[in-house]
Amino acid sequence: MDIVRVMDELVCTRRVEGLRHHALRIVRSAQGVVSVATDAVGAPVGSWVFATTGSAARLAMPDHTAITDLTICGIIDHWGQEGPAPVGTTNPPGLAGGAKPADRT
Amino acid sequence: MDIVRVMDELVCTRRVEGLRHHALRIVRSAQGVVSVATDAVGAPVGSWVFATTGSAARLAMPDHTAITDLTICGIIDHWGQEGPAPVGTTNPPGLAGGAKPADRT
Amino acid sequence: MDIVRVMDELVCTRRVEGLRHHALRIVRSAQGVVSVATDAVGAPVGSWVFATTGSAARLAMPDHTAITDLTICGIIDHWGQEGPAPVGTTNPPGLAGGAKPADRT
Amino acid sequence: MDIVRVMDELVCTRRVEGLRHHALRIVRSAQGVVSVATDAVGAPVGSWVFATTGSAARLAMPDHTAITDLTICGIIDHWGQEGPAPVGTTNPPGLAGGAKPADRT
Amino acid sequence: MDIVRVMDELVCTRRVEGLRHHALRIVRSAQGVVSVATDAVGAPVGSWVFATTGSAARLAMPDHTAITDLTICGIIDHWGQEGPAPVGTTNPPGLAGGAKPADRT
Repeated sequence: MDIVRVMDELVCTRRVEGLRHHALRIVRSAQGVVSVATDAVGAPVGSWVFATTGSAARLAMPDHTAITDLTICGIIDHWGQEGPAPVGTTNPPGLAGGAKPADRT
Repeated sequence: MDIVRVMDELVCTRRVEGLRHHALRIVRSAQGVVSVATDAVGAPVGSWVFATTGSAARLAMPDHTAITDLTICGIIDHWGQEGPAPVGTTNPPGLAGGAKPADRT
Repeated sequence: MDIVRVMDELVCTRRVEGLRHHALRIVRSAQGVVSVATDAVGAPVGSWVFATTGSAARLAMPDHTAITDLTICGIIDHWGQEGPAPVGTTNPPGLAGGAKPADRT
Repeated sequence: MDIVRVMDELVCTRRVEGLRHHALRIVRSAQGVVSVATDAVGAPVGSWVFATTGSAARLAMPDHTAITDLTICGIIDHWGQEGPAPVGTTNPPGLAGGAKPADRT
Repeated sequence: MDIVRVMDELVCTRRVEGLRHHALRIVRSAQGVVSVATDAVGAPVGSWVFATTGSAARLAMPDHTAITDLTICGIIDHWGQEGPAPVGTTNPPGLAGGAKPADRT
């Protein structure tokens, strides 16, 4: 699953019927790639989350007929020995005090 | 879902039967990668859109038997605190006044 | 769908049974990545084409049991205001007079 | 299958129902990309493993309904003429004494 | 299909049940990315091959229940006007005398 950060709510009037009733989120990876995701857990803006791709993105939605290939499936508390990421941090929680993934790409 | 911009209509005489009756669009990502997409929402040239990949691209089409792996599923109005993107902008709407995604890749 | 150019016929004596009767093509993307594709439209060497990936690649073949994840689905005439790409051009048709995608990657 | 290293256990309180009872691992590729994976073999932190993607990730889980697109399927002992990787090494086992994959990317 | 070279046999004691009876190969792309693949044609170490990804990787295996997302489906003899690649070459057969794909990435 991809680790991304919720940036914003997407405003999108014209969309396919299969996405009519779903909130859409703008998410960004540590490498700076911006995508659109559906959300199965109600992740607030600013939180680091992980998202499933492909057919798993549809299975993760309460409504399996949602037309999506990227669904937020969990909100990351932290990993490793570090505590939760402070609000506003731009690094994933477990890497807050270390090198940015983008530096290593 | 990928965020791409509709660049043009693709002219393609010789194609597989499963794409016989579908308009094909040239789309470009913020990273400059050019692809061919089917279109489920009638997106005009120049608009920023999001597109689903994989099997979701087929499910997004009114005709599920369309042979596609990339379908435009919504036209982006904007995100964040910014208004709609001006016509002719080369950046995604929500990033019009900020850094280009391509700069961070 | 990916935009690639047909470079050559692949010579391959030992292959899986599910590809026994299919011609295999060497294709190259604008970014220089070389892949092997099956061909559903009979694209000549040198032509720019688009190809579907994943399960759509199998559905695009007349024989759906072909073992493939990349199938040529259409020969690109051109896009935008430009005419057909001249024979031997190394850029995609619609970009013949402009920047190469590879320059922007 | 992707070759990645298990970095940590992911702490994640809020998650989709389909991942309720599964341990989640933070894994990192030789190129430095950090992802979240489910684990079908009980790989300890620090070990180099390979993981399947897509629908194969679900089939690899004892419970096929797990919502995942990346599952650890085997712990790498070594390859080539080298012995097992020493604890704490940052390179994949078979490349311990050679060039790092990241150098060639 | 991806063009990769067989580097080695993978030694892996602990693995999922669905890979219990299958040989695993270490393969490397022209861009230097190292992966693990199942093998449906018995490709010797050092040979250039092409491999299918995703669900096609399972369909390519004699046993369709194999847990894999990358299966070697054919051994490349050569392409273009060149003869077979000499043993020990580090370039794909059809590119032996030309630019390396990695140079163009």
